[in-house]
Amino acid sequence: MKERAKIILTGDRPTGPLHLGHYVGSLKNRVELQHSTVQYVMIADVQALTDHAEQPEMVRRNVLEVACDYLAVGIDPSQSTLFIQSLVKPLFELTIYYLNLVTWNRLKHNPTVKQEIIAKNFGESVPAGFMIYPISQAADITAFKADLVPVGEDQLPMIEQTNEIVRHFNRIYKKDVLVECKALIPKIARLPGTDGKPKMGKSLGNCIYLSDNADTLSKKVKGMYTDPGHLRVEDPGKVEGNPVFTYLDAFDPDKEAVEALKAHYQRGGLGDSVVKKRLNEVLQAFLEPIRTRRDEYVKDPGAVMQILQQGTGRANAAAHQTLLDVRKAMFLDY
Amino acid sequence: MKERAKIILTGDRPTGPLHLGHYVGSLKNRVELQHSTVQYVMIADVQALTDHAEQPEMVRRNVLEVACDYLAVGIDPSQSTLFIQSLVKPLFELTIYYLNLVTWNRLKHNPTVKQEIIAKNFGESVPAGFMIYPISQAADITAFKADLVPVGEDQLPMIEQTNEIVRHFNRIYKKDVLVECKALIPKIARLPGTDGKPKMGKSLGNCIYLSDNADTLSKKVKGMYTDPGHLRVEDPGKVEGNPVFTYLDAFDPDKEAVEALKAHYQRGGLGDSVVKKRLNEVLQAFLEPIRTRRDEYVKDPGAVMQILQQGTGRANAAAHQTLLDVRKAMFLDY
Repeated sequence: MKERAKIILTGDRPTGPLHLGHYVGSLKNRVELQHSTVQYVMIADVQALTDHAEQPEMVRRNVLEVACDYLAVGIDPSQSTLFIQSLVKPLFELTIYYLNLVTWNRLKHNPTVKQEIIAKNFGESVPAGFMIYPISQAADITAFKADLVPVGEDQLPMIEQTNEIVRHFNRIYKKDVLVECKALIPKIARLPGTDGKPKMGKSLGNCIYLSDNADTLSKKVKGMYTDPGHLRVEDPGKVEGNPVFTYLDAFDPDKEAVEALKAHYQRGGLGDSVVKKRLNEVLQAFLEPIRTRRDEYVKDPGAVMQILQQGTGRANAAAHQTLLDVRKAMFLDY
Repeated sequence: MKERAKIILTGDRPTGPLHLGHYVGSLKNRVELQHSTVQYVMIADVQALTDHAEQPEMVRRNVLEVACDYLAVGIDPSQSTLFIQSLVKPLFELTIYYLNLVTWNRLKHNPTVKQEIIAKNFGESVPAGFMIYPISQAADITAFKADLVPVGEDQLPMIEQTNEIVRHFNRIYKKDVLVECKALIPKIARLPGTDGKPKMGKSLGNCIYLSDNADTLSKKVKGMYTDPGHLRVEDPGKVEGNPVFTYLDAFDPDKEAVEALKAHYQRGGLGDSVVKKRLNEVLQAFLEPIRTRRDEYVKDPGAVMQILQQGTGRANAAAHQTLLDVRKAMFLDY
């Protein structure tokens, strides 16, 4: 008997255009997985507003930017369901019901949220909406009865929170309405920034964006951090912690050539500029077709919005069915 | 120029049938106010679930009970909009957006919620949904652009929380979308229990319900607390703190007769049983027509549900218009 295809929920907060870190960490996997799974890709505008409530225009603008990034890298709207979170109304209602199944103390002790509060410098002014976003995520995941949720290691507490809600709900309402999910942890979770910091981040200013033009890309590659001990061409250089080589590992299709470059760099006699030239060629070749497709979509925002509306329609149908089941289990089927 | 009619939002949590305390504290006012105002009367099933998540059947049953109580006392569905909270979907969405405008700390320090947490013996297990219910209330109030919200003194912090959200929203989204509300504090806020405790409460077992039959009512009146120092008929008795007289004040249409009874009781020579007999007559006369109408509605739950569905339709239309304005102000009008 053929097993049914797994359901995946994934997505991004529309707070900026997507970069190579997103590509390596998630977009690449989505493009591959969309053929063998039922994949929902959510543009999480509601979640973006939890810590950007005062920048709604920025969020709105980036919904379209992120959609163009998705389409440009090959997320295919006939294979994946692309949708805008705030247009799928059952997610709001599920969030409110799930909040009754989680204690205030439990929310306070979510390790992921605790770290993010520090990173975001909220101080004493953490928005309540931000504190409860794990519950909103549980609504997103369970609305589509997702089996798999691609997340980094640091997001595992989110999956656990979701599954706690699933078990609690099914137990007290005596129905197997909700489905537990599993984390899908990508092999290469993280691409370092161009400055060598462990992670690319918009606020760190160390990103190469999918939408960067050829010129910007060249400049960013030229300015990349390498081995700071590699002062003269003849010096041996370090490959570990050297983002230029990490990027080559991730994007250069000729693995043997990369290994040869690494060996040469380590024994000395290979200048940074030569390696960067290679990386620039590799990244230009990688990004050029993405950029071309992206420009086509950017020129036709109406068409992009139509794709999102169609996906949103499919997402609503699925989420609405779950909500009907949930309401029935809760004796809310008036 | 004629001023527009004021909009009122009011309602009850469907966690039990309504009693005389509800009648004096709110139902009576609603029956009077419905002719001169635009009155929304909400059966707050979503709010009831914030601290009764594990008793959904109880909540469901009481939605109908409360509706029958409303109709029986004379809340007229052609004058007031009676609706079920969970069927007005914009309320969920507004709640989620408003949560981003309130800090976690602010929620924690809401005086009304703090008192209720103690009263409800939640200990360390306060449901997150319960902690955020003031925000859900702000959604209810603002969705209908209510000017007036009937509340007891102890609920004033709820009104203040709502108005904080209104001001914050209008400021950051640069639109006068939401409307501030005022508390409407009833003259007689509270009827004591039959045991003399300051408040009637289901869990205290000291209520006279609108649905009590003639027999039950007689027994409850006979068993009422009076002046414990009034041991013999000839002893002088106290009227203050004597719920039998408080009830007579509230329900006996013949104010002079009540004053005469009080004087007689205070100087001695009037037995409790005589006063209770009078109260029983008064309450039987008051409750008999209510009970008769109530029985008609109880016999036809389909008709009651139809009334609620019609009101819910009107409530949805109003709340949906507010949500459209809110989404537009937040750049969510995709």
